Amino acid sequence: MKIVIIGAVAGGTSAAAKARRNDEDAEIKIYDMDYDISYSGCGLPYYIGEEIQDRDELTPRNAAFFKKKYNVDVFRRHEVLKINTENKVLTIKNLDTDDVFDESYDKLVIATGAKPIVPNIEGAEKSNVFYLRNVRQADKIKEYILSHKPKSAVIVGTGFIGLEMTENLKKLGIEVTLVERLNQVTPGLDSDMAAYVEKYLKSKDINLILGDSVAALKGETLVNEVALESGKVLNTDFVIMSIGVKTNTELARNAGIDLGAKGSIRVNTKMMTNIEDIYACGDCTESFSVINKKPLYRPLGSTANKMGRIAGDQLTGGNLEFRGILGTGIFKVFDMAVAQTGLTEKEAQSEGFDTVVCHNIKPDKPAYYHGKEMVIKAVADKNTGKLLGVQIVGYTGVDKRIDVFVTAITFGAKAEDLFHLDLAYAPPFSTTKDPVMYTGMILDNAINRGRELITPKELNGLRKAGNDVTVIDTRVSRQYEEAHVENAINIPHAQVRNKIDELDKEKVVVTYCNKGVTGNAVQNILINNGFKKVYNISGGHKNYKAQTK
Amino acid sequence: MKIVIIGAVAGGTSAAAKARRNDEDAEIKIYDMDYDISYSGCGLPYYIGEEIQDRDELTPRNAAFFKKKYNVDVFRRHEVLKINTENKVLTIKNLDTDDVFDESYDKLVIATGAKPIVPNIEGAEKSNVFYLRNVRQADKIKEYILSHKPKSAVIVGTGFIGLEMTENLKKLGIEVTLVERLNQVTPGLDSDMAAYVEKYLKSKDINLILGDSVAALKGETLVNEVALESGKVLNTDFVIMSIGVKTNTELARNAGIDLGAKGSIRVNTKMMTNIEDIYACGDCTESFSVINKKPLYRPLGSTANKMGRIAGDQLTGGNLEFRGILGTGIFKVFDMAVAQTGLTEKEAQSEGFDTVVCHNIKPDKPAYYHGKEMVIKAVADKNTGKLLGVQIVGYTGVDKRIDVFVTAITFGAKAEDLFHLDLAYAPPFSTTKDPVMYTGMILDNAINRGRELITPKELNGLRKAGNDVTVIDTRVSRQYEEAHVENAINIPHAQVRNKIDELDKEKVVVTYCNKGVTGNAVQNILINNGFKKVYNISGGHKNYKAQTK
Repeated sequence: MKIVIIGAVAGGTSAAAKARRNDEDAEIKIYDMDYDISYSGCGLPYYIGEEIQDRDELTPRNAAFFKKKYNVDVFRRHEVLKINTENKVLTIKNLDTDDVFDESYDKLVIATGAKPIVPNIEGAEKSNVFYLRNVRQADKIKEYILSHKPKSAVIVGTGFIGLEMTENLKKLGIEVTLVERLNQVTPGLDSDMAAYVEKYLKSKDINLILGDSVAALKGETLVNEVALESGKVLNTDFVIMSIGVKTNTELARNAGIDLGAKGSIRVNTKMMTNIEDIYACGDCTESFSVINKKPLYRPLGSTANKMGRIAGDQLTGGNLEFRGILGTGIFKVFDMAVAQTGLTEKEAQSEGFDTVVCHNIKPDKPAYYHGKEMVIKAVADKNTGKLLGVQIVGYTGVDKRIDVFVTAITFGAKAEDLFHLDLAYAPPFSTTKDPVMYTGMILDNAINRGRELITPKELNGLRKAGNDVTVIDTRVSRQYEEAHVENAINIPHAQVRNKIDELDKEKVVVTYCNKGVTGNAVQNILINNGFKKVYNISGGHKNYKAQTK
Repeated sequence: MKIVIIGAVAGGTSAAAKARRNDEDAEIKIYDMDYDISYSGCGLPYYIGEEIQDRDELTPRNAAFFKKKYNVDVFRRHEVLKINTENKVLTIKNLDTDDVFDESYDKLVIATGAKPIVPNIEGAEKSNVFYLRNVRQADKIKEYILSHKPKSAVIVGTGFIGLEMTENLKKLGIEVTLVERLNQVTPGLDSDMAAYVEKYLKSKDINLILGDSVAALKGETLVNEVALESGKVLNTDFVIMSIGVKTNTELARNAGIDLGAKGSIRVNTKMMTNIEDIYACGDCTESFSVINKKPLYRPLGSTANKMGRIAGDQLTGGNLEFRGILGTGIFKVFDMAVAQTGLTEKEAQSEGFDTVVCHNIKPDKPAYYHGKEMVIKAVADKNTGKLLGVQIVGYTGVDKRIDVFVTAITFGAKAEDLFHLDLAYAPPFSTTKDPVMYTGMILDNAINRGRELITPKELNGLRKAGNDVTVIDTRVSRQYEEAHVENAINIPHAQVRNKIDELDKEKVVVTYCNKGVTGNAVQNILINNGFKKVYNISGGHKNYKAQTK
């Protein structure tokens, strides 16, 4: 049997390695257009920021490695021009010699990945406009920084790469301006969570321009001005374009292979395309959601590896099947960690779920063990109580909590299940009740025990719609006087029991404190005293304040 | 309704707070013998080691707090002498005034906790023999250190407290000798995992005495010699006894309440004892295993909190029920983190499971992001493929992985499920495939795909039983020559395909490399070439070497 794989980064090499583990005899060949193979795409920003000192760390496995360890032949700088699916032959061009030749296959794996989107604007191809996807592109950025000693950069796009590059350029002493088309950073987050990232970026002296796009990149040989749609003009020494990627699927499409979400190759759970003996994996391939089974395109190294391993297993008679993804993502920007999994509130609502959300603000460890506060926004389905998605913004311990949520959601956890988890507790690692447990408790109280939450946005909506709402600030007077929710009255927790008779039990009441705990305590007191409708502000005044720009 | 609670640390105060959240009208009183209430028992070693500077951080909530916030009356220094279950009356003694009085209850919660075991040996009560359970005991240790400036300490017992105190005393410049009755440290781990902790402790200049017990504590007024059963005598400036705890359940037993594991109070999932209207929670209370539903006594602050909350909910008409524990534990000793959940291999075998184990040695992050290696020992049930328990020894990221395992095991995960988790990946947080996923892959390969593992102990057993085994060291010759498994032959991975004909396919073959990956690759090659029985050493030469004392 002869297995040919197109693409030698995460998906393709994983498929090859797994196929060889299962089958000693198969002939396995990989063709790739690039100079570098099997590189860590996610490490590129850290190579530029000099966290990674040695370029070889990005490409620990070369063609010789694959030959020696896996008896796999890897051909770099080879472009597959055409797939002839009838007689199972590829037409391939050697990019160094321009030779064109044919190569037959019994089974074919398409792992052609994705490429950065190049916008159709003036100057997009100039030599100091960079797109970061492979090692050569990272080299170019490094070389430019070394030779030109730039003082400023404009980064367009605020996804993972945009924000990781922000940190890494800033560390090199370069002033960074971020331009984002949306009215928020980090498109994968709900806007109320993005607000925390925005405040943090500003505190790090990042110039943040939201709701604006690049109209043109101007300059003689090099770009030195970025003209925005708003008319604003930014002076800059170079530009990094990180506005997303586009699948490399022209080859597949021309061969009659079905495409799906965002032009990615449609596969079944065995990573098989619609054409027999042709598989696909990695960033060129469609995925689907664990939650609602709908198609999803979320290109990531971890998913590419997973798909590749499954394809390699299936190629060689194995029974591994792809189970979908939650679309989990995490990134670090300076000391902040931002993570999300499953559906955002916005996505869940557009999928038709009746959502309950909470903003749980808790330290990851006790203060004496240097605990730092994180904000966990969790989204659950009101009808089933099931968790739909989680977003976390914090500093330390964010990755732990998101992975626990990932695992819980994968197994169909309800909000009420989280409190019961026997998570590992000791002061250097967590609080007695872990933030994950609190999140479940808050949601459970909202869904099943009548302790409803209201988000700052919902409160504003309620008031704008003309509802008469009593808002009670339950904090001590000093805190109330510093800053409070518009038109809130101040009744500190300790005084509530004495002042109940002054309040109208028929009116909608909204309670809040700093983060939600005392607000909830007062909500309990009011409900237990016969108040008809009492909401507690999700995330309290901290979250309310974070939403004001 | 009048709720009376005996005990005001984790369980009792949690019960009170939850009861009040549900019910504004109930009268709630708590009686406790101690001076300090609601303290963080788990923080005590860090208070002694001066990680916690301010004593108030250990006791953030005093009686006034409970009155103000929860309208709960807390009485310190009050001992409940007797429970009269017939007429629902307690006999209580004020320890400051010696007054004795009666107190009635409608519902009673027993949260009397546990106390350190004091061995029945000469000198056990001397003033420089310390038992660490409450804040006053921590104060005494601090005072002794301040006034006597001790240079050396003997710590007896190597559980959480023993090892946490080891770190904290060492940080104060005190030489520590650890004495442990068993032939391993950390009784909650299998001995092969404890071996890693032992090597680390030795590297930190801790004098470690295993398999020996204290016979007597000698000295005039203060202990200055510890005489061991072996005849060995240790000179020391003071002693910390941390050989476990004993439930405070005489009061309950005298009232006719049923006791269970290790004398703890038996309760149902509603935290109700056998006597109507009497509940129990916290360290005096029996728990049960999530895995096999059997009774389990594992006193921990996190579980006490959980039980207290459930008791408080049930007292006031709620429907929360206890779902059991996995017996999860974690501790830090210097820079090492040690965690475990579920059943150890030894426990699983004594429960009658047909076990499969793996030792997965992986960094928590890429090397360029300061990743540090951890050893994950996972135990699964061969028949169902379900995970039974996990032990991890490492440095960073251990807490994250144990919590993901806890969540997976809680939901009944099979080993094969772990690979499919969409865990959060970015270089500052993890490797492309997380160590948790690799653990699942290794176990799945062993259980379902014929890639069997053999532990160093099993290999030694096989050989001792006279089996003729070919052991192949698959590493490069230089590594083989440095050190190798007894009687192993050296066939580096890259040469295996050429040397297959020299090997006997009918004989049992054992492969290994440094950590297991290359050993598995060679195992694959041999199996794919028709070898009948091939094992790979679990955790490779690293794990083999760690087992030699």
